[in-house]
Amino acid sequence: MVLDRFLVLPLLLSLLFLSLATGLVQDFCVADLSKEDTPAGYPCKPVSEIGYCDFVFSGLASPGNTSTLIKAAVTPAFVSQFPAVNGLSISAARLDLAVGGVIPLHTHPRGSELLVVIEGIIIAGLISSSNDVYVAKLHAGDTMIFPQGLLHFQINSGNSPVVAFVSLSSPDPGIQITALSLFSNNLPSEIVEAVTFLDDAEVKKLKKLLGGSG
Amino acid sequence: MVLDRFLVLPLLLSLLFLSLATGLVQDFCVADLSKEDTPAGYPCKPVSEIGYCDFVFSGLASPGNTSTLIKAAVTPAFVSQFPAVNGLSISAARLDLAVGGVIPLHTHPRGSELLVVIEGIIIAGLISSSNDVYVAKLHAGDTMIFPQGLLHFQINSGNSPVVAFVSLSSPDPGIQITALSLFSNNLPSEIVEAVTFLDDAEVKKLKKLLGGSG
Amino acid sequence: MVLDRFLVLPLLLSLLFLSLATGLVQDFCVADLSKEDTPAGYPCKPVSEIGYCDFVFSGLASPGNTSTLIKAAVTPAFVSQFPAVNGLSISAARLDLAVGGVIPLHTHPRGSELLVVIEGIIIAGLISSSNDVYVAKLHAGDTMIFPQGLLHFQINSGNSPVVAFVSLSSPDPGIQITALSLFSNNLPSEIVEAVTFLDDAEVKKLKKLLGGSG
Amino acid sequence: MVLDRFLVLPLLLSLLFLSLATGLVQDFCVADLSKEDTPAGYPCKPVSEIGYCDFVFSGLASPGNTSTLIKAAVTPAFVSQFPAVNGLSISAARLDLAVGGVIPLHTHPRGSELLVVIEGIIIAGLISSSNDVYVAKLHAGDTMIFPQGLLHFQINSGNSPVVAFVSLSSPDPGIQITALSLFSNNLPSEIVEAVTFLDDAEVKKLKKLLGGSG
Amino acid sequence: MVLDRFLVLPLLLSLLFLSLATGLVQDFCVADLSKEDTPAGYPCKPVSEIGYCDFVFSGLASPGNTSTLIKAAVTPAFVSQFPAVNGLSISAARLDLAVGGVIPLHTHPRGSELLVVIEGIIIAGLISSSNDVYVAKLHAGDTMIFPQGLLHFQINSGNSPVVAFVSLSSPDPGIQITALSLFSNNLPSEIVEAVTFLDDAEVKKLKKLLGGSG
Amino acid sequence: MVLDRFLVLPLLLSLLFLSLATGLVQDFCVADLSKEDTPAGYPCKPVSEIGYCDFVFSGLASPGNTSTLIKAAVTPAFVSQFPAVNGLSISAARLDLAVGGVIPLHTHPRGSELLVVIEGIIIAGLISSSNDVYVAKLHAGDTMIFPQGLLHFQINSGNSPVVAFVSLSSPDPGIQITALSLFSNNLPSEIVEAVTFLDDAEVKKLKKLLGGSG
Repeated sequence: MVLDRFLVLPLLLSLLFLSLATGLVQDFCVADLSKEDTPAGYPCKPVSEIGYCDFVFSGLASPGNTSTLIKAAVTPAFVSQFPAVNGLSISAARLDLAVGGVIPLHTHPRGSELLVVIEGIIIAGLISSSNDVYVAKLHAGDTMIFPQGLLHFQINSGNSPVVAFVSLSSPDPGIQITALSLFSNNLPSEIVEAVTFLDDAEVKKLKKLLGGSG
Repeated sequence: MVLDRFLVLPLLLSLLFLSLATGLVQDFCVADLSKEDTPAGYPCKPVSEIGYCDFVFSGLASPGNTSTLIKAAVTPAFVSQFPAVNGLSISAARLDLAVGGVIPLHTHPRGSELLVVIEGIIIAGLISSSNDVYVAKLHAGDTMIFPQGLLHFQINSGNSPVVAFVSLSSPDPGIQITALSLFSNNLPSEIVEAVTFLDDAEVKKLKKLLGGSG
Repeated sequence: MVLDRFLVLPLLLSLLFLSLATGLVQDFCVADLSKEDTPAGYPCKPVSEIGYCDFVFSGLASPGNTSTLIKAAVTPAFVSQFPAVNGLSISAARLDLAVGGVIPLHTHPRGSELLVVIEGIIIAGLISSSNDVYVAKLHAGDTMIFPQGLLHFQINSGNSPVVAFVSLSSPDPGIQITALSLFSNNLPSEIVEAVTFLDDAEVKKLKKLLGGSG
Repeated sequence: MVLDRFLVLPLLLSLLFLSLATGLVQDFCVADLSKEDTPAGYPCKPVSEIGYCDFVFSGLASPGNTSTLIKAAVTPAFVSQFPAVNGLSISAARLDLAVGGVIPLHTHPRGSELLVVIEGIIIAGLISSSNDVYVAKLHAGDTMIFPQGLLHFQINSGNSPVVAFVSLSSPDPGIQITALSLFSNNLPSEIVEAVTFLDDAEVKKLKKLLGGSG
Repeated sequence: MVLDRFLVLPLLLSLLFLSLATGLVQDFCVADLSKEDTPAGYPCKPVSEIGYCDFVFSGLASPGNTSTLIKAAVTPAFVSQFPAVNGLSISAARLDLAVGGVIPLHTHPRGSELLVVIEGIIIAGLISSSNDVYVAKLHAGDTMIFPQGLLHFQINSGNSPVVAFVSLSSPDPGIQITALSLFSNNLPSEIVEAVTFLDDAEVKKLKKLLGGSG
Repeated sequence: MVLDRFLVLPLLLSLLFLSLATGLVQDFCVADLSKEDTPAGYPCKPVSEIGYCDFVFSGLASPGNTSTLIKAAVTPAFVSQFPAVNGLSISAARLDLAVGGVIPLHTHPRGSELLVVIEGIIIAGLISSSNDVYVAKLHAGDTMIFPQGLLHFQINSGNSPVVAFVSLSSPDPGIQITALSLFSNNLPSEIVEAVTFLDDAEVKKLKKLLGGSG
């Protein structure tokens, strides 16, 4: 039964499956960022324009600039930076924290985060919506999960720089940093105070620190 | 560890996160209704064109016109009316039922419905696919859930007008009203009779009433 | 073709579809809250134990208690209160805000929110992950959408109580109130300060106000 | 580089991957129908109890009984009949229509349907929620798609029996037959009339025909 | 209560629902294949250009050409061939296997498969990710399920041609045939050998047979 | 408006939100692996039994054993090893490849993979369902994406060991290694040959190498 198949022309077989292949345009959908986004992500670049380079991103190879207020940097590989994750429910980022560095309290509105420590020591914390706190000290090789949408943070608690990689369950998970949401824009101080219980002096001090007005 | 962060320039921080922010185009995707729809919804209006007005819809503030055959009106806030719900798995509608008003038997092919009665008294019913009937009398403040795709109806069973708001688990849940599906179009009477067990006279009477032909 | 169908026994038809009906156990899945939750929700109560009352919830009919620190109350109709929404991607809540009342800054980690004002005047705001602020004044009948996971708030900005209903695109969307996440638990003050830029005195004052320690 | 791999013990390799394999319990989740359903489907039978028979269903091999009121039969292979489709977003059914047979107007609340005609001639129709009608005559080998939740029907329009197979995009798509929803249960006639525009005589006649009361 | 509804003008009713209907553009989204694909599928053809023909596909009515190396043919009705399945989580294909025909080892990266045998006898097999093998002999009318992404195959094990229809839980499930992935392209032989344990002679023989190079 | 809120008792506020919190049981669903799996994952451990340790996994900190046939090891942090990823659409694994090591050709039936190289040099390849090959050389810090269900492989192409971390878009993505699927079980050689084009000698040699029979 098996043997005589090998006598037929290979050409016939490849013709058969070539005609099939025209329907398989969605093995991947590398984002065409020049087009309008849709609720499911960007339109796809034509497959004919895709090469192996589209599937590779080198932007996480170098440390981010930690000479900042927070002595830390987040380098994303989301769909805007790495168009090949478009439509694929996954993305990544690199965290660099100098000694004393902090990734401030934040959420990812559209994804869960899985962190792997590569170098250094982190204190990382997670707060549930019932206000329970889960804080852990993580060393190189440790992994921690931060479920979707919940507040969390990372602090370099050691004496050397931290490098960590995180992956997120969305090509565009979002990062909403609480302090910047409140103090880096023109949300009126009176409103900030009303919705956070903070006093006026503190709000105005932080608006000044973080570039906000109002 | 904490204090010296405050000495660094706020500018650096905002620069850091501004570069991040360019990737976060999908906090929302307000529909650009002038573009072609996709299976996940309409392409997004550019974020630069979005203002607070996009997130607000005032079309449910006024009662619908209940001087109709059914003495009732459904005013939708679906993606066509309220483009900000595009991609967000939720939409709303307002129901007005004059005394004697009825929202006829219908389904939402793509979403579950949650109804809240604001004024008046409703008899609402739900029929499962095993033909079980669940009928309830609802007063102001009562909530009722109609699971996805199942036949249901609402009747004003009181002596005053009814106002109710419904929300639906899709930006475009659809409304398929059984009587209009059968009697307001050109589906041939012979077919209607074959697939519903109704007799010819009844079908022709209702086609006349509801604007159908054939 | 059509007529003679009416001559056959109705019994045969009902037998036919009764045997079908045994497969249709998932028109709805009213939560059996006594069982362990799963990632998709609670196991289902047996259909034989379901009556029309399961689909109705009256807990939103009465105002919540607004004699609180925030002069406001959120009354949820999530899966724990209204088991019929289990598995259905929708739930609801009632907001009551006395004069001066505020629903503090919060997120819903697992759903978008659609709000309808029933009585009174609200100032509601939404902050995107790129820190843009969208603040609107809403009157009775106005609807506003708060996309999934983003920080938002509601303030009674009028001279009379506010009643509003919200629906959310999950049977269990979660409510994470920023101030309670930081100040109502035992998260150490030093960590709070490091991840929020707040000063020590403010953090300790709010921990005292909101019942936290550490 | 390649060659020396073949010198190492196969045992080591299989040990490596056997330890991996314990995590892979969800290649499939054959339903344990004796357990309570969940919103995502039934709990899984242990993998150790699964054999090739679980993946095979022979219940569609024989024609259904068409000696019924509708001269037709629907034989489902949904999760209740074919537990291996649990969790897999697909199921099937066989349609048999004797000469003059009809599958009455119905919806599938939770899935789209794809029909393939094997024998005979069908007139099939689909009604959109904007009440547009799409009616087609189908011959052996023709395929038709009925999108999720929309009303549709099939009629044997030829002179010989029809056999067709349908697949549906859910392991438990549901079948809601309009006439049975209205006339085979105890939904009061007055309500049926109010929500369908049918007259009292017709409703009572059909309740009698289809086994309903009230 | 019911009767006087019939006195009002049908025109009013149809006006009511016509205005509604403009929001219901997503009962279906027939693919406009001339536009760029998105992660959720192709943009929709305008509803005004849709007719009943869009919902019907006749391409599975005729047998595929089995005069090939594998004595078999797969005829797809995926989104590229049958644009109406766009966005609908279902598609189909026809399998023809001449005597001695084989559908080689393959996966569908994006969908589960449900097979129905129409004519002939098949030996079909499924391999789990823990390397368990499930092989069954199928006759006309038998159904078999192949869960998403797992390796499987079909062999005509009888003395007559096989016809089978399969449905898949995606409008574009993909077909990845292992032998073609390895031997019909320019993947270097050295790499093929390293990742499959095959020896050099075998790889080069099969690259020649199946049209590959390198 | 804002000030007097601070005069009310904190107790009232915490009481308010404590009653809310009982509904928020699904911020996370740490798997109770002792219970039966469901199509959406394992039932949840009670929240009262969850501590910070549940969110941390240290099993990726140490290299896997590369003294194997493939000179490589895959150490998973899937739901079976790291129960906190249950229900969260993300998981991780560590890859160790000694000099000359290879992760053989494989797929993940239920997820996309994102790889980050930590140490060493990898040649990684991806094959589309239209048989296009995308092969890249990756250095430390490089990231590569392998879309769901597609065949791929990794080869240590340098002179030092490789460490890489991968994340996958499912808590239980599966790993199906082609060679083990064919040669490590009891799938009859005749069938293997029929579905792969391999010759009998090669199949029997590899069955012997990889522990298969038949």
